[in-house]
Amino acid sequence: MKPQFIAGLADGQIVSSLFLVREKEIRTSLRSGKSWLELNLADRSGSIPAKMWDNFEALAKTFDCDDVVRVRGRVKIYNGQKELTLEQIVPTTASDYDLADFLPHTKHDVEKLYASLRGAIAGMKNPWLRQLLSSIVEDPLLAPRLKRAPAAMTMHHAYLGGLLEHVVSLVGLAAAVSAHYPELDRDLLLTGVVLHDIGKIEELRYVRSIDYSDQGRLLGHIMIGVRLFREKCSAIEGFPEPLAVLVEHLIISHHGTHEFGSPSLPQIPEAVMLHFIDDMDSKMAGIWATLEAGSADESQGNWTDRSPSLRRALLRAARYLTAAEALEAPVVGTRKE
Amino acid sequence: MKPQFIAGLADGQIVSSLFLVREKEIRTSLRSGKSWLELNLADRSGSIPAKMWDNFEALAKTFDCDDVVRVRGRVKIYNGQKELTLEQIVPTTASDYDLADFLPHTKHDVEKLYASLRGAIAGMKNPWLRQLLSSIVEDPLLAPRLKRAPAAMTMHHAYLGGLLEHVVSLVGLAAAVSAHYPELDRDLLLTGVVLHDIGKIEELRYVRSIDYSDQGRLLGHIMIGVRLFREKCSAIEGFPEPLAVLVEHLIISHHGTHEFGSPSLPQIPEAVMLHFIDDMDSKMAGIWATLEAGSADESQGNWTDRSPSLRRALLRAARYLTAAEALEAPVVGTRKE
Amino acid sequence: MKPQFIAGLADGQIVSSLFLVREKEIRTSLRSGKSWLELNLADRSGSIPAKMWDNFEALAKTFDCDDVVRVRGRVKIYNGQKELTLEQIVPTTASDYDLADFLPHTKHDVEKLYASLRGAIAGMKNPWLRQLLSSIVEDPLLAPRLKRAPAAMTMHHAYLGGLLEHVVSLVGLAAAVSAHYPELDRDLLLTGVVLHDIGKIEELRYVRSIDYSDQGRLLGHIMIGVRLFREKCSAIEGFPEPLAVLVEHLIISHHGTHEFGSPSLPQIPEAVMLHFIDDMDSKMAGIWATLEAGSADESQGNWTDRSPSLRRALLRAARYLTAAEALEAPVVGTRKE
Amino acid sequence: MKPQFIAGLADGQIVSSLFLVREKEIRTSLRSGKSWLELNLADRSGSIPAKMWDNFEALAKTFDCDDVVRVRGRVKIYNGQKELTLEQIVPTTASDYDLADFLPHTKHDVEKLYASLRGAIAGMKNPWLRQLLSSIVEDPLLAPRLKRAPAAMTMHHAYLGGLLEHVVSLVGLAAAVSAHYPELDRDLLLTGVVLHDIGKIEELRYVRSIDYSDQGRLLGHIMIGVRLFREKCSAIEGFPEPLAVLVEHLIISHHGTHEFGSPSLPQIPEAVMLHFIDDMDSKMAGIWATLEAGSADESQGNWTDRSPSLRRALLRAARYLTAAEALEAPVVGTRKE
Amino acid sequence: MKPQFIAGLADGQIVSSLFLVREKEIRTSLRSGKSWLELNLADRSGSIPAKMWDNFEALAKTFDCDDVVRVRGRVKIYNGQKELTLEQIVPTTASDYDLADFLPHTKHDVEKLYASLRGAIAGMKNPWLRQLLSSIVEDPLLAPRLKRAPAAMTMHHAYLGGLLEHVVSLVGLAAAVSAHYPELDRDLLLTGVVLHDIGKIEELRYVRSIDYSDQGRLLGHIMIGVRLFREKCSAIEGFPEPLAVLVEHLIISHHGTHEFGSPSLPQIPEAVMLHFIDDMDSKMAGIWATLEAGSADESQGNWTDRSPSLRRALLRAARYLTAAEALEAPVVGTRKE
Amino acid sequence: MKPQFIAGLADGQIVSSLFLVREKEIRTSLRSGKSWLELNLADRSGSIPAKMWDNFEALAKTFDCDDVVRVRGRVKIYNGQKELTLEQIVPTTASDYDLADFLPHTKHDVEKLYASLRGAIAGMKNPWLRQLLSSIVEDPLLAPRLKRAPAAMTMHHAYLGGLLEHVVSLVGLAAAVSAHYPELDRDLLLTGVVLHDIGKIEELRYVRSIDYSDQGRLLGHIMIGVRLFREKCSAIEGFPEPLAVLVEHLIISHHGTHEFGSPSLPQIPEAVMLHFIDDMDSKMAGIWATLEAGSADESQGNWTDRSPSLRRALLRAARYLTAAEALEAPVVGTRKE
Repeated sequence: MKPQFIAGLADGQIVSSLFLVREKEIRTSLRSGKSWLELNLADRSGSIPAKMWDNFEALAKTFDCDDVVRVRGRVKIYNGQKELTLEQIVPTTASDYDLADFLPHTKHDVEKLYASLRGAIAGMKNPWLRQLLSSIVEDPLLAPRLKRAPAAMTMHHAYLGGLLEHVVSLVGLAAAVSAHYPELDRDLLLTGVVLHDIGKIEELRYVRSIDYSDQGRLLGHIMIGVRLFREKCSAIEGFPEPLAVLVEHLIISHHGTHEFGSPSLPQIPEAVMLHFIDDMDSKMAGIWATLEAGSADESQGNWTDRSPSLRRALLRAARYLTAAEALEAPVVGTRKE
Repeated sequence: MKPQFIAGLADGQIVSSLFLVREKEIRTSLRSGKSWLELNLADRSGSIPAKMWDNFEALAKTFDCDDVVRVRGRVKIYNGQKELTLEQIVPTTASDYDLADFLPHTKHDVEKLYASLRGAIAGMKNPWLRQLLSSIVEDPLLAPRLKRAPAAMTMHHAYLGGLLEHVVSLVGLAAAVSAHYPELDRDLLLTGVVLHDIGKIEELRYVRSIDYSDQGRLLGHIMIGVRLFREKCSAIEGFPEPLAVLVEHLIISHHGTHEFGSPSLPQIPEAVMLHFIDDMDSKMAGIWATLEAGSADESQGNWTDRSPSLRRALLRAARYLTAAEALEAPVVGTRKE
Repeated sequence: MKPQFIAGLADGQIVSSLFLVREKEIRTSLRSGKSWLELNLADRSGSIPAKMWDNFEALAKTFDCDDVVRVRGRVKIYNGQKELTLEQIVPTTASDYDLADFLPHTKHDVEKLYASLRGAIAGMKNPWLRQLLSSIVEDPLLAPRLKRAPAAMTMHHAYLGGLLEHVVSLVGLAAAVSAHYPELDRDLLLTGVVLHDIGKIEELRYVRSIDYSDQGRLLGHIMIGVRLFREKCSAIEGFPEPLAVLVEHLIISHHGTHEFGSPSLPQIPEAVMLHFIDDMDSKMAGIWATLEAGSADESQGNWTDRSPSLRRALLRAARYLTAAEALEAPVVGTRKE
Repeated sequence: MKPQFIAGLADGQIVSSLFLVREKEIRTSLRSGKSWLELNLADRSGSIPAKMWDNFEALAKTFDCDDVVRVRGRVKIYNGQKELTLEQIVPTTASDYDLADFLPHTKHDVEKLYASLRGAIAGMKNPWLRQLLSSIVEDPLLAPRLKRAPAAMTMHHAYLGGLLEHVVSLVGLAAAVSAHYPELDRDLLLTGVVLHDIGKIEELRYVRSIDYSDQGRLLGHIMIGVRLFREKCSAIEGFPEPLAVLVEHLIISHHGTHEFGSPSLPQIPEAVMLHFIDDMDSKMAGIWATLEAGSADESQGNWTDRSPSLRRALLRAARYLTAAEALEAPVVGTRKE
Repeated sequence: MKPQFIAGLADGQIVSSLFLVREKEIRTSLRSGKSWLELNLADRSGSIPAKMWDNFEALAKTFDCDDVVRVRGRVKIYNGQKELTLEQIVPTTASDYDLADFLPHTKHDVEKLYASLRGAIAGMKNPWLRQLLSSIVEDPLLAPRLKRAPAAMTMHHAYLGGLLEHVVSLVGLAAAVSAHYPELDRDLLLTGVVLHDIGKIEELRYVRSIDYSDQGRLLGHIMIGVRLFREKCSAIEGFPEPLAVLVEHLIISHHGTHEFGSPSLPQIPEAVMLHFIDDMDSKMAGIWATLEAGSADESQGNWTDRSPSLRRALLRAARYLTAAEALEAPVVGTRKE
Repeated sequence: MKPQFIAGLADGQIVSSLFLVREKEIRTSLRSGKSWLELNLADRSGSIPAKMWDNFEALAKTFDCDDVVRVRGRVKIYNGQKELTLEQIVPTTASDYDLADFLPHTKHDVEKLYASLRGAIAGMKNPWLRQLLSSIVEDPLLAPRLKRAPAAMTMHHAYLGGLLEHVVSLVGLAAAVSAHYPELDRDLLLTGVVLHDIGKIEELRYVRSIDYSDQGRLLGHIMIGVRLFREKCSAIEGFPEPLAVLVEHLIISHHGTHEFGSPSLPQIPEAVMLHFIDDMDSKMAGIWATLEAGSADESQGNWTDRSPSLRRALLRAARYLTAAEALEAPVVGTRKE
């Protein structure tokens, strides 16, 4: 872990640490002709503008956007915002840093999430499905990618470990709804939960930033996931084909409608339910993230910014219930006293 | 309870019981000129055609469709189907019968459902909301209607007691998701669960068949429910208006989108969640009903009829998994052996 | 009324008046390090940029955006645009000014509009509806708010008094179509006209700018209007409930479709007509506003800017008819000479 | 006019009159082998089934569906419905009858409608537009077709004279809205009113029934109307082309949106208004027709059949207001007494 | 091939041949009580009603709908329609008949179509793609199914051999557009043409009638096709994975939009073009079939029945151009003489 | 042709040439008060920023945006981008320059395109259609406009000569599909190809930039094209009206759906095909333009910018196939080695 994070920097502090370069530009003042190097530096805790005033020309050619650099400089407050005045910038290579320092990641303990998922799989009664899931989740090549993958580019769980966090949350929801509706095939639903987004470990790349891979854009995580599942499935001697068809059906129908990219619509109860809890958990994660952002800032009022997943702002209900809105007395409902 | 139900009638049996008249027509044979009275009789267990061949002209004027009549006759099998040959038909009045004999109703024990609902309300921590719900659920005028109301005309829970059954199922789901997402305000969600469809006790009438009331068609259950809630709310001294606004918001936004008739979109997490579990429980109830219909008939194959709520047929997965589809060997996935 | 309005300021003029602060920012020159205070000041006649160069630090903390301040300064022309150079800024309190000076308002005489509305109500034949409308329009708490409320945030009648102006225009249209279609119940239609948007006096707040109230966002003006109507209705001894249902139906269906937030669709002729004339008057108001904006500026050509309510530009037909478009002769229709 | 109309026939009456053949079929009884001729006969007052039992084979080949025939026979009541037993059927030619006897037509006096339209045109101030409209409305070839054309196949004004009735109703609405919104160019709007559907005199044929012509299906009444307008326009020496462009714009944009077949969207106020009043008058005509159908039949309850133009049933408000719905007392709003 | 086909049967002819049973019912006359067996029999040339009047009870239990039976009987004309009076019905087994006699099939010579497809593949320059297509089209298990598969359930090419006919037509179109747009990768486009619908050999079953398989309903032909392709691809040593990704992309995006079931949108020119020519050929095949149906029947007028693929009727242009529509002279365009 | 084009300017070069003024603004430095004239200059090869520092006040009033001016100045590199420092600016008149120097135009030889079109028309067999097309394409007033018109404002062929290029491409496609589907009436399809967009010579103006004419916005190219066609058609003695109706049908239905502005849907095979090939050629032209833009810039990666006509980015397949994406090894499909 690197020594200093942006969120912890204070005015006047001497900085010597690694940062990811998000933006890089040479700017020139109107008329004075004086130029400087303007950067935007980031790590997983946030981002900060940075300026270098002298001797930056040659230096600026040694690194690019999305590179990690080592800088030395000092924090100053400018127009009420922190920024860095740089003295030195040194390029690095991938071996010099830990990518996890620069990308946002889940607040949960990934190993605990992973253990929880393995526990749920171990408790399955259907031997074919249990063997199938184990062969994927415990595959030494896949396990590290499963622990690291985000669940989305934006919207919800858009950080390292987000996919695993989302899957483990769904494991809990699947258990709850299976208890509520005993007609559901619990093991089949759990299989859908674990595999529905597994293609995202290939669809989304996270090399200094989260992005789609070429294959991800051309095929999408549903197709990649089906292929991964089919490869693992064909390695299990005697796996019943009709059961495999149902699992594939769960994966390809989990978006619920053609409009959202599912080539088939859910046609068994477990597929309908998988779509429901997947949608519910994604939306709720987006809601908590929206409510959390700026929640400390009282001046923001009773409403959040627009939630990307719901496409509307949300009320901060606790604030609303305690604060008196009443700039003017309401015209209805006031005469009961 | 009346002595004989349609589902239990056997060939040759003498029938003397009450039935609801669904269809009534006088038919005449081509050329022979002979006329007869053709009825369709129903009770909560099913329906049966019935014919009266002689002396029916005056009799036929004494009753109408949707009336309950007492008939005497005999069962015969005609073209492989049971029908009644009638000897006598006597009109009745509402005091002669119990409507519950003629309308389908929930398989659950309504009093147990009601007790379960009261138990959930008793366990609430927010005193305002607990008092509000109690004042509605235990209102001596409302309680009997709540126990009897269907949840819908078609689609799901379309039978007497269906609304209460649906609400109690949602109480269970609300408890499960509140445990899963501790950020949710459990009491507020429960309030939404109990009140979201309360207007259906007025929107849907069930006088010998389930139908919309005039007011129900003009206003809809959301508006009726809001009014009922506001009347009860205003009877509670000091009920905080902001809290009342949130409850009203839950009721009016529970359909999730404008397209489905909600005048507002969910803007607090509990409203989003209420829409999710309401939609989920309605759809799942529709799925179980679709799977159950004709499930005993092996000749029907692996697929159900079209589900009205999902607008598609469903696979009977258990049958599919055990039966060999293979009229022809599949071309893919068969070479791994 | 304050002494000076922005629309009337001239180059070099000394200004000493009240303005609403729309934007407030401290800016710093690149390299020179020199900072200044940059404001955007507004009143109902328009807005103007303003700069204060010296001794602004302490002063800037005494007021916020949306406050009304008293300033002293001088007008100068800068890059072809008027701006203010400020010497002094003094905070004020609500008692120091008349809000009407800072918000745009209708060009019509509000008292005349109000009298016209009362006249129309007085002419109604149905005593229940006449009493209902009088009890709302002449309520001493509601009347001032009705006179002040805008009809919308944007789109049409988005200014103080806009709601009343819109309602009175609809009164005229309702009279015209009732004369044209004598089958219409004139009093019922008029009731819908007066009450359809009454909830906007609560939905929209206008505290230094027009905005939605929290309650307005959570419930919407339809729900608020219904509640206000029901409270007033229940205060009238013996008001027939079926008539009340029709009035509520008019209010809730006036947006015409679910998509536009109506929980019910119009199911009586008066509700269909109310939706038509409401939509017509809103669109026409948007059209006149779009045509008026920039109508004096000949250089703008034959087309207006995009109308927000129609989502398209409009032709200035008079200009088009008089001007020769003909940069090139058209290829069709020219050979008849 | 023919001597007997279907609506006036009584049981046992001897019939000798002309009717339009809607359906014609030879039917055979099961087993008995006996055949008969089954017809459905119609005139503008309604339709009636008719049977011929003997010697019909040769006769049946002398006429086809949509032909007008002279029949002789007797009315009998069969299963509660009137039907004709035929003794003779004689084919006719077009010169034997007046088509108006067989097609439904407007209840208004067509000549009065026509005079009213001419009066409105005579009152126009713009000489170009007045001359244009006169040259069309008074064209000796067009006038009779204008008086006879229906306004639509179904939905509204679907009868002879319906187009003229619709146009004259719009003339009234145009006058009303022009008075209400003085910014509107009254003559331009009136021109749009008269010409917007003029292509229907060619699109819709009415040769024993109302149907689309081939040209009507391939081009539609908008294109046909534009062509008719342009031909008349080019015959007026010096008609200003920009004015002609605006008139064409009114015709082609009057459906309001691309979805409803307008190649252009309304871009001048008069075009927006033309779409509004055209839509309003069509919908209102559909509403009156829906309410009128079955209005005499008290047994039908408070709701009409589904209106084709609104795609919903309508409440018969007068009945609803006078009848007590109350099979059960409502649960809300009843405690104020 | 069986000796007699339905299309060739004449009144009074003695029939002794095989037919597919489409419908089977025992009917009873009203009052007379006499029962008979009513069948609908079919072969690839059409269908015919059939009745057996005596001794059918035991016989009727020996076969079901969708079985092929051998019948003996005689043709009679009844109410102007041919029907069969049966004397004997004998069940058969699959070895007794050739399924091709009972299902509609392509008019083209399947072996010529197949040879044409192999020729196109042989001419490809890209060795990987050529080897891939050969390994599929010449697979001894797949080739017979490819020759027999229909291209759709309804809409277009809905008959045996329809898939191959459609693919070969697309081979021709692909060659034409590749010549027109030389930027296209001809071999890649051809690969998409051959493989895009290959999954239909599994999705659609044709056991006495064309229907979806269970797997086809759950997964769809896109998923089945991808799996078949991937299995064949992985059998080719060294097949470049990026090339395989492009081929998979072509298959999964060929429906063009999510709404039509494609999990990805076309993102290379060949995928866009594949969608265009696939859509074009399907629509044109539907158009020719619609125009052909009833084309011999002059009485049908100038318009076809509604085309299922275009959802509208089509004009028979040749008839329209030669026939005089002119029941009335048109009002426009006639005065130029 | 002017002597210097923007694409060819080099650092330090003295410039003396004509340019189109796209933007013109006087800017002032913060605090220093120093002002300058800032222009954006363009010709058909690209655009460049330009500044004039002294004595520009009077000069700036002598020209406007969209004027062509003669400038003298020098190229310098500023912040890595070329810009012009101006010494002199001289207004010009239309006779001083060739508009073709300032607007982008087709890369094809317009005269060859035109000859090719004439050749196709000369080869038609239907004499009426051949005469019709000749009379339009060879009209001395229309021919020059046909050669110059763009095919669209944006999206595809948005440059001078684009319409002719598009039409000639369609002529080739029409020949190809007519050969493939011999049922098509080749001459009718070709007529649709030549006339479908002919109204664009009037809809789009190109006076120093491509824009819609007023008439184009009010009527659209379909209506303008129909009128031009009808005028030419009526000049041909004896042109059969039914054939004219089919041609008009082709023009008005070529957008395929109401949503895209066609007042009629295609109802003959040639109209369906015209829509297909028109859509195909427009989309493919948009694709080639998208792929070409930035194709030389290797740093851009494997994906293009968003294509305006497809509303998505496209893969540069050749790059993708040759480059190794593999920043991480893929998880599926890699184990076959």
